[in-house]
Amino acid sequence: MEKSKITKQSENFSEWYLDVVREAGLSENSEVRGCGIIKPYGFKIWELIKKFLSQEIEATGVENVYFPSLVPMENFEKEKNHVEGFSPELAVVTHGGGEKLEKPFAVRPTSEAAMYGAYARWIKSYRDLPLRLNQWNNVIRWEKRPRPFLRWSEFLWQEGHTVFETEEEAKKEMWQMLDIYAKVCENYLCLPVLKGRKSENEKFAGAVITSTIESMAKDGKSIQAGTSHYLGQNFSKVFGVKFLDRKGKEQFAHQNSWGASWRLVGSVIMGHGDDHGLRLPTPIAPIQIVILPIYRTDENLEELESAGQLSQKVSVMDFYINGLKVFENLQKNYRVKIDERMDLRPGFKFNEWELKGVPIRVEIGVKEVESKTAIIFRRDTMQRKIVQIENLEDEIKLAIEAHDKNLFLQALAFREQHTFRIENFSDFEIGVKKDIAGYFDVSWCEDPNCEKEIKEKTSAVSRVLPTKNENKLPKNSKCFHCGKPAKHDWIFARSY
Amino acid sequence: MEKSKITKQSENFSEWYLDVVREAGLSENSEVRGCGIIKPYGFKIWELIKKFLSQEIEATGVENVYFPSLVPMENFEKEKNHVEGFSPELAVVTHGGGEKLEKPFAVRPTSEAAMYGAYARWIKSYRDLPLRLNQWNNVIRWEKRPRPFLRWSEFLWQEGHTVFETEEEAKKEMWQMLDIYAKVCENYLCLPVLKGRKSENEKFAGAVITSTIESMAKDGKSIQAGTSHYLGQNFSKVFGVKFLDRKGKEQFAHQNSWGASWRLVGSVIMGHGDDHGLRLPTPIAPIQIVILPIYRTDENLEELESAGQLSQKVSVMDFYINGLKVFENLQKNYRVKIDERMDLRPGFKFNEWELKGVPIRVEIGVKEVESKTAIIFRRDTMQRKIVQIENLEDEIKLAIEAHDKNLFLQALAFREQHTFRIENFSDFEIGVKKDIAGYFDVSWCEDPNCEKEIKEKTSAVSRVLPTKNENKLPKNSKCFHCGKPAKHDWIFARSY
Repeated sequence: MEKSKITKQSENFSEWYLDVVREAGLSENSEVRGCGIIKPYGFKIWELIKKFLSQEIEATGVENVYFPSLVPMENFEKEKNHVEGFSPELAVVTHGGGEKLEKPFAVRPTSEAAMYGAYARWIKSYRDLPLRLNQWNNVIRWEKRPRPFLRWSEFLWQEGHTVFETEEEAKKEMWQMLDIYAKVCENYLCLPVLKGRKSENEKFAGAVITSTIESMAKDGKSIQAGTSHYLGQNFSKVFGVKFLDRKGKEQFAHQNSWGASWRLVGSVIMGHGDDHGLRLPTPIAPIQIVILPIYRTDENLEELESAGQLSQKVSVMDFYINGLKVFENLQKNYRVKIDERMDLRPGFKFNEWELKGVPIRVEIGVKEVESKTAIIFRRDTMQRKIVQIENLEDEIKLAIEAHDKNLFLQALAFREQHTFRIENFSDFEIGVKKDIAGYFDVSWCEDPNCEKEIKEKTSAVSRVLPTKNENKLPKNSKCFHCGKPAKHDWIFARSY
Repeated sequence: MEKSKITKQSENFSEWYLDVVREAGLSENSEVRGCGIIKPYGFKIWELIKKFLSQEIEATGVENVYFPSLVPMENFEKEKNHVEGFSPELAVVTHGGGEKLEKPFAVRPTSEAAMYGAYARWIKSYRDLPLRLNQWNNVIRWEKRPRPFLRWSEFLWQEGHTVFETEEEAKKEMWQMLDIYAKVCENYLCLPVLKGRKSENEKFAGAVITSTIESMAKDGKSIQAGTSHYLGQNFSKVFGVKFLDRKGKEQFAHQNSWGASWRLVGSVIMGHGDDHGLRLPTPIAPIQIVILPIYRTDENLEELESAGQLSQKVSVMDFYINGLKVFENLQKNYRVKIDERMDLRPGFKFNEWELKGVPIRVEIGVKEVESKTAIIFRRDTMQRKIVQIENLEDEIKLAIEAHDKNLFLQALAFREQHTFRIENFSDFEIGVKKDIAGYFDVSWCEDPNCEKEIKEKTSAVSRVLPTKNENKLPKNSKCFHCGKPAKHDWIFARSY
């Protein structure tokens, strides 16, 4: 067996993550500090996630547009909280076309300030509403502590920007889009997520409400995997997005914005990966099935070659794989790769495809050809099953279903095992400092200052008020930290 | 009839173009000078073009990646011609994260200088070749004279960057990718293009050979609709992209880059549009078929309403359209819109869908319901045909085929009618100054200084040496301009 180039998760989770990202060929650092190069295998995962997100978003009637990536700096200054939140992270263009610009531009960190001036021009009457637009683009937010996919200074995402007549409609859509993010995570990424809203401190700069989906990494930290914001009239008032309502009265519109990025790739890696590397859910796996002809064992290469038997084996196996209808069907219905490399030992190839997280491996050696069978290896369980060749397609279908279901259930079980009800702050501090911590279910006062203190002491913050707790009395009437009256049961955690 | 908001092509082609772009809802200017906002209808056309380009590019084995949009300024300075060509057009980021940067970044105008440093790290041996990567992204080139889609300071495109062992392989791929661009134009955009190579003056900054596809606008100007460059070893030598060849000797690699942008949207508008507005080829039409229930004529609304017959008509027509299998099938197989707006007159709607270039319109009035027929209107010919309702699907299929074929043939005929063989420079000058000029087929010496002089005198330049003329003797042995020996027959034209 190859010596693994991957740190064990239990030794150092952060190192494990960097190792997997590098060794699986997902991405690497670029010469621009904090910005990554996404390599083909990593980019294909993102393209597949994007495909599902696109489908779901467009099915609700949203249309795609494109706005310039440069935003006049003065636009940022219109919304007070927005500028406070984003100005430390801006990249600023001061020269263009060989000259110093009269007014500098920011490269968009998000497009509220780029789009809403146009919205103000477009929207005159309630008949122009709702307006529901989306764009897929790159944004730049200067990051102090970059981390592949999760926190790069430049990232790809979609940002939806929608406008409504009423608060009610807008809030309904905010939750609808959050549900879409949750659905994509659960159905295609096999990742369970917690849905709910953010605290005052943790919400988007300029939002009235931020709702979030949170997925758990295998070190117990939380990943904000998508957010949907109700912006209220904060932006419509400063950008002048107003309309004549059904009674002919001028009103400021209610706005939302919602976004999901290639953080989702990071969520998948951290939520499913193990010490062997990636484990990819089938819907977003660039290669869903790898077919591995085993021309030889690790030991008998020279033996075979000297006996002149290797070429004979190859042609028999090639005939088996390329001549049978069952393999043809697989290649029609799945993203399949046949690994025909002759110069690598099977053990090396096993490791490589496990590292790359290919869900299903089909191994075919001499014995299989002779007995008209094949071996199906599942990445999730790392277990093999011998099947009759005529059943291969059906067996693979079942294996894929089981694989994806198992990924989801394992992640769900992991989250449940790493969610702890905490009643007092000293237990919380101890819990947070554990190597594998998790989610802390606490009754909390919701006071921003209380949260600030908790963060300073533990580096943990509130992640989400789960929707199911929104209308429930807290389990404890007092805040776990400050002892003031608790408002709801929240999830606190450390996060990426 | 509505008074048209569109200038006639024959009156002022540039105004016509701006009018169509605005009135068809394709895009508008933004507050960032030279940058446009692409609205949903315009963006959907681009997304459909992108889909076909993607399919064709990926079918050749190219994989997608993403590199940062910021490029260290010093990288540009490595390739002498490249920096000369692009430095006047750069947008420069000097501040990031609230601080002045030690070294400024350019926002990519193209990604040679962003990618080839990584290529140098990745490529060690001939076994790592060919490397064939592509990215879909935004680039910024500060434009002095912006024009929607054709020349915006920021645009979306794909840029392929490929690396080969030999000059021969690289050149072969350069032409292969140009063929793909031509195929997409001809098969999906119904636009005939001329393929061939560029002159020394007109080639890409840093290329050894630039090949191009040129499409003709309806004012006779040429549009460079896609380019594919053989970069030779120009970049590999300065970025250190080298490899150990099959004999163990270190070699600099041979590189290509090739790109196509949303200029293609501009090519479609200018190549097919008429005085009524857009004419869209069906493959890239956001709406392929619009179904228009005609509840009333332009005149009889009040009459009908007072007689209480309107609602009855609506329900009969709704039943006809929503109740028949033939309409259900259309909606399954095509991008169909049913225009049910009650408050607009038929004439207004006709104009609107013609302006938006919808290829097929199905009109259904009372007479059609009674006689179990429908009217098919083709945008290309502006003609109607009455068909039996049970034949509607077949008739539409035939109409679409005829529509797209006709668009292609009309554009081809237009180009042929506007291609002139010119033997002497005075005829050339007169020809170029005509309101609708065209392509000038001339025998030319290929001297860069000669081209410069022609440009100064007429603003026309060489557009392409058509591939079919590459190995032919020129028709005239002397240059049409300077009288020196001619090398080939070239196409000269004014251009966008």
